[in-house]
Amino acid sequence: MSCVPEHPSVIVVGASGYAGAIAAELLWRHPHFELAAITAREDAGRPLRELYPQHRVPLALEALELDRAAAADAAIVAYPHGSAAPVVAGLLERGLRVVDLSADFRLRDVETYQRWYVPHPNPELISRAVYGLTEYNRDAIAGAALVACPGCFPTAAILALGPLAQAGLIADVVIDAKTGVSGMGKQPRDANHFVAVTENVRPYGVGAHRHMPEIDQELAALGAPVPVVFVPHLLPIDQGELLSCYVTLTRALTQAELEQIYARRYGEEAFVEMVAAPPGVRDVRETNVCAINVHADERTGKAFVFAAIDNLWKGTASQAIANLNLMFGFDEGLGLA
Amino acid sequence: MSCVPEHPSVIVVGASGYAGAIAAELLWRHPHFELAAITAREDAGRPLRELYPQHRVPLALEALELDRAAAADAAIVAYPHGSAAPVVAGLLERGLRVVDLSADFRLRDVETYQRWYVPHPNPELISRAVYGLTEYNRDAIAGAALVACPGCFPTAAILALGPLAQAGLIADVVIDAKTGVSGMGKQPRDANHFVAVTENVRPYGVGAHRHMPEIDQELAALGAPVPVVFVPHLLPIDQGELLSCYVTLTRALTQAELEQIYARRYGEEAFVEMVAAPPGVRDVRETNVCAINVHADERTGKAFVFAAIDNLWKGTASQAIANLNLMFGFDEGLGLA
Amino acid sequence: MSCVPEHPSVIVVGASGYAGAIAAELLWRHPHFELAAITAREDAGRPLRELYPQHRVPLALEALELDRAAAADAAIVAYPHGSAAPVVAGLLERGLRVVDLSADFRLRDVETYQRWYVPHPNPELISRAVYGLTEYNRDAIAGAALVACPGCFPTAAILALGPLAQAGLIADVVIDAKTGVSGMGKQPRDANHFVAVTENVRPYGVGAHRHMPEIDQELAALGAPVPVVFVPHLLPIDQGELLSCYVTLTRALTQAELEQIYARRYGEEAFVEMVAAPPGVRDVRETNVCAINVHADERTGKAFVFAAIDNLWKGTASQAIANLNLMFGFDEGLGLA
Amino acid sequence: MSCVPEHPSVIVVGASGYAGAIAAELLWRHPHFELAAITAREDAGRPLRELYPQHRVPLALEALELDRAAAADAAIVAYPHGSAAPVVAGLLERGLRVVDLSADFRLRDVETYQRWYVPHPNPELISRAVYGLTEYNRDAIAGAALVACPGCFPTAAILALGPLAQAGLIADVVIDAKTGVSGMGKQPRDANHFVAVTENVRPYGVGAHRHMPEIDQELAALGAPVPVVFVPHLLPIDQGELLSCYVTLTRALTQAELEQIYARRYGEEAFVEMVAAPPGVRDVRETNVCAINVHADERTGKAFVFAAIDNLWKGTASQAIANLNLMFGFDEGLGLA
Repeated sequence: MSCVPEHPSVIVVGASGYAGAIAAELLWRHPHFELAAITAREDAGRPLRELYPQHRVPLALEALELDRAAAADAAIVAYPHGSAAPVVAGLLERGLRVVDLSADFRLRDVETYQRWYVPHPNPELISRAVYGLTEYNRDAIAGAALVACPGCFPTAAILALGPLAQAGLIADVVIDAKTGVSGMGKQPRDANHFVAVTENVRPYGVGAHRHMPEIDQELAALGAPVPVVFVPHLLPIDQGELLSCYVTLTRALTQAELEQIYARRYGEEAFVEMVAAPPGVRDVRETNVCAINVHADERTGKAFVFAAIDNLWKGTASQAIANLNLMFGFDEGLGLA
Repeated sequence: MSCVPEHPSVIVVGASGYAGAIAAELLWRHPHFELAAITAREDAGRPLRELYPQHRVPLALEALELDRAAAADAAIVAYPHGSAAPVVAGLLERGLRVVDLSADFRLRDVETYQRWYVPHPNPELISRAVYGLTEYNRDAIAGAALVACPGCFPTAAILALGPLAQAGLIADVVIDAKTGVSGMGKQPRDANHFVAVTENVRPYGVGAHRHMPEIDQELAALGAPVPVVFVPHLLPIDQGELLSCYVTLTRALTQAELEQIYARRYGEEAFVEMVAAPPGVRDVRETNVCAINVHADERTGKAFVFAAIDNLWKGTASQAIANLNLMFGFDEGLGLA
Repeated sequence: MSCVPEHPSVIVVGASGYAGAIAAELLWRHPHFELAAITAREDAGRPLRELYPQHRVPLALEALELDRAAAADAAIVAYPHGSAAPVVAGLLERGLRVVDLSADFRLRDVETYQRWYVPHPNPELISRAVYGLTEYNRDAIAGAALVACPGCFPTAAILALGPLAQAGLIADVVIDAKTGVSGMGKQPRDANHFVAVTENVRPYGVGAHRHMPEIDQELAALGAPVPVVFVPHLLPIDQGELLSCYVTLTRALTQAELEQIYARRYGEEAFVEMVAAPPGVRDVRETNVCAINVHADERTGKAFVFAAIDNLWKGTASQAIANLNLMFGFDEGLGLA
Repeated sequence: MSCVPEHPSVIVVGASGYAGAIAAELLWRHPHFELAAITAREDAGRPLRELYPQHRVPLALEALELDRAAAADAAIVAYPHGSAAPVVAGLLERGLRVVDLSADFRLRDVETYQRWYVPHPNPELISRAVYGLTEYNRDAIAGAALVACPGCFPTAAILALGPLAQAGLIADVVIDAKTGVSGMGKQPRDANHFVAVTENVRPYGVGAHRHMPEIDQELAALGAPVPVVFVPHLLPIDQGELLSCYVTLTRALTQAELEQIYARRYGEEAFVEMVAAPPGVRDVRETNVCAINVHADERTGKAFVFAAIDNLWKGTASQAIANLNLMFGFDEGLGLA
């Protein structure tokens, strides 16, 4: 990284979605990055504030033109899976470093990807991508041209379970996830109509959620090759995810031992907070923080791990900025405090 | 009404919307009416419970066939404006009594209708329709073949202001309305996406809401020919409407006088509750009740009137059932307690 | 039950809480029971509507006088644990049949009760109490003088897991519960302040919730002597409980086998609905229904069982009415449809 | 202001309430001010994060000791009315500049204060206080030792109506206010219990809200000596206030004229945003911004003004910081972007 510009210019491709818009906002306020342009497949010409009055980026959405994009140093791509890969390929060809928020480069096995998603448009790029879970892949991210940001649920799941996986302690695990409606995206649907959601809670994607193979892949890589139970539930909140993980251990642990395992792993982490009581999602709203609480359950011998993140921040947009910071040699937390 | 069947059969035309589905539910539980069929323009063949797990009508939606509908004694029509009128015409021709929930027969002046809505498909029927505000039109409703149920806002507005209008006391009035999201209908849109609504409140339709000319018409008919200020606000609640009415009076009133005016008018009404403190919409949720509180403001000489209804019940579906009760000679409140 | 009055008179002792007030409302509308009086330890003299404008029982709260209460045929007692038992004793002495909503007579082992609650004021009565889970104890309830209504979580938990327990299929189970705020009671506290709850979700009572021993007791009685993992989470909803149960099975089951086990057990039950998709709590709001969905998970070999109830209805007040119906020889569902 | 320290030290007195805690958070992140201490009347010794996990100020609450406080350059006082004044007096005596968030120094007429609040503990200080509505009192604030921050409703009301008042255009005005629950404070009460608020909306303080005389005072000072109608409504949101103002004008205005009046007044204001559509409170959440939309209503000749603020930010804590910035010669928006 011999020639990092002092103020690298970054474009956000797909800034009309929730996460893309937040990424744009974070870049626009960032002390070093310069937000060069924001693009969208629809709504070209519209000021971002028309779509999001709460954001104050004073730019209008543009149609993406790869050759103009070539002037930028980096891009955050916030397209749906299947649509992201070709754009990522075009940007990489033009020399940009890319942080991709889609699922296209998260799964290392192309057949797994294709079983859960769509035919992969650019399988040749998979091996070039680094999985962008900041706390577990810092060095690789720093040197990468392409970073695949984790899904929001896998972000929280791996942060919650990584220390136990690495210690070989997971025999079996149930992950019961609760998520806000923004995780479902901005497109109006029956399922995100206010009347369908308010005063309600409902499981969805039971046995079929696409974040399952991603969690399996990462847990296995860390030493826990078990198929997880993972069931998300839709809650009447807009942002936030809470994962309640119930772990059958390979050997008994006291509360002190359990806490020590996490303290050792996360003691130096700026954006993982080990907390004394089970966290609520409000505690981490609009932050890059994952709050984790652990409980060694004497009655059952299990370990409970509760992890809360903001799905649009740590789960997507702010983790992307943290990774971009690393890719350009900046402090990981720059612009995120 | 020489030959009222003991158990009149009723169909609900357009039962896939919020109000139509509630009307179906109320008819299905009704001690006298028999719910003969429920129809919808889409979703024919689907059990209603697939759309509304909270309703327990064990019927499936059908496509409407007017000639089969002819076997029924009455219909509740819950179609959008412009689409309702032709169906109403077809049902009337076949001898059914009809309660229409659309705007098509609410405005007595066809030009006003056409300025605010669409070209009227069946203007010849307008004069046959009775405006279905139960408390103000009971006798006419009882004898009508076609009842046009009021809009949800006009229902609350006229109940709130009628006594003052009839007494010639309204010089000027500001109606600030707060409504739940169900008032906007079931079709998913940006504006009813959970994320757009939660933790938010926003005025809409400022100076342009279609319920304004309807409120003007009815207030004028009762003796208050003033153009109202009427501004609705969208709230993060699903059902319920609160109207805060600020009335400049033609002469000063004490609190006792003001209360007496309302007590005289509504003392015998089963479904208007005069309450001692400003009502909340939860107080009347899933009821046919309009709760009203009045305040003679010494500081300003104005009268404040607060009225709360459930927009889908008193504002639409349960008022339709009350009217249907009257049309068939039953007690107005049958099936609504 | 030689001399059941046609219209038994019932008092609600402790009608100022959420569940007591709903029980009063249900009795007041009940075709057979006569609501004779409602009492509370505070607020004597206040009309119930002052506390609950949404309820329409036209009675005022009274202070309880046991000797006057003796005129009634039955009582529903809605006092906190520890306070309920002496009142129940007094009412039983005076010949009333009692449905108790507290925890005082749920646990058959007095030491377990005292470990989780307080010193038991009336241990001699424990053996006289019948555990009031309607679907599992119908005959005993019908003949009982004292019925101890289950806790809201145990109600849903046993309905969810009972069929598997009876079939000896539960090797291990994780119950992740989501509950509305009304479950916490009416007393204002930091934890139920609107600002603390909205846009939030948080586990509570981890490893320490008092409904755990009750679930253990009942599951063991049905054939599954395993300590359960049970973790409740507080959600920004007012009423409703969803239990997500993840069962490690003693032998593999297909989806068809799993469904058949439940169909056999609940096929004739009026208030258990086996549903094809995971239920939301809105589906059962203000009903006596428990909606259950089952999923045989091929990936992990586990069975998932999702159960939704209204904590204040099926979880408390309406189940009490169903039990009272049985105790007086009425149809179980009378007044609950 | 000859000797402004580069990094003035500030204490927050009463940091355990919502607004005090936010003020502490803003000061802790402020590039120039140094947060020296946070105090509270209860909870001394507790880290602020125990009370507010979402705030990250790493300080514990202390008991206030005036003599130790003397070392600071300034204080933000967030005590209830009546309790604030004596503390403000003590701090002023010790040479601190004070921004007071209570009502104690907002009303210039002590009798008016005493009629609406309590006997005034320190009437001698009233004349020394500057009313801290930043946009209208910038110069006086800059030179003041004591700034009385406006109430949240008056902040929005005067920003909404000031331009019309100054132009002598207000003949009469109705202000219908909608507010989130945080405006009611942190103390748990029946009225802020989640169950009382969710899915509800209700007027409160009708004809009796303490912000009325404050609005009257300021409007009169700006040229509109009319008693306002002001009715607040409690909404199921945590933060945010929307004021809908319906103004009877002294002469007719076109939409263009109305917009021009506001553009002239607020064109240079960094924290007043004139917006083209009626604002929602989400648009200004956690900002120092007041968003205003105006509508000249042809039907009625009235002007409608809609103003949205965050009651805890612009309505209290962030306006306090803006004022403190001015008092120390910093840019008004420092630390608030």
